[in-house]
Amino acid sequence: MDIRDRLAANLRRIRHEKGWSQEEFAHEADIHRTYISDLERAARNPSIEVIEKLAKTLKVNAGQLLD
Amino acid sequence: MDIRDRLAANLRRIRHEKGWSQEEFAHEADIHRTYISDLERAARNPSIEVIEKLAKTLKVNAGQLLD
Repeated sequence: MDIRDRLAANLRRIRHEKGWSQEEFAHEADIHRTYISDLERAARNPSIEVIEKLAKTLKVNAGQLLD
Repeated sequence: MDIRDRLAANLRRIRHEKGWSQEEFAHEADIHRTYISDLERAARNPSIEVIEKLAKTLKVNAGQLLD
């Protein structure tokens, strides 16, 4: 499982744990919903600054999104 | 300390633990030496695929480079 797939799975899992839709997550993170959707399909290769923003929104460490 | 600074500090620390110069690290990772130097000065915002490549070269988890 490569790093995009791990990110996708972690985002989806943690978002579900919070009971958020993709739209709610996108709103909280101030990132476009289609970008969130792309990330959850492993269709993008985001920068670490995007990872930081996602991690802060989800209240996890950045590393927890990638491992 | 933002995510670029944490990456920079982790790369430098782990590279030193392995006793590698920036040139040796660059060679092992198949990444240009100036790019390694930029990363260790927090001067770049790399993608997660670059993080994966660096982590594999250093034999750590990707998350260990960011936390």
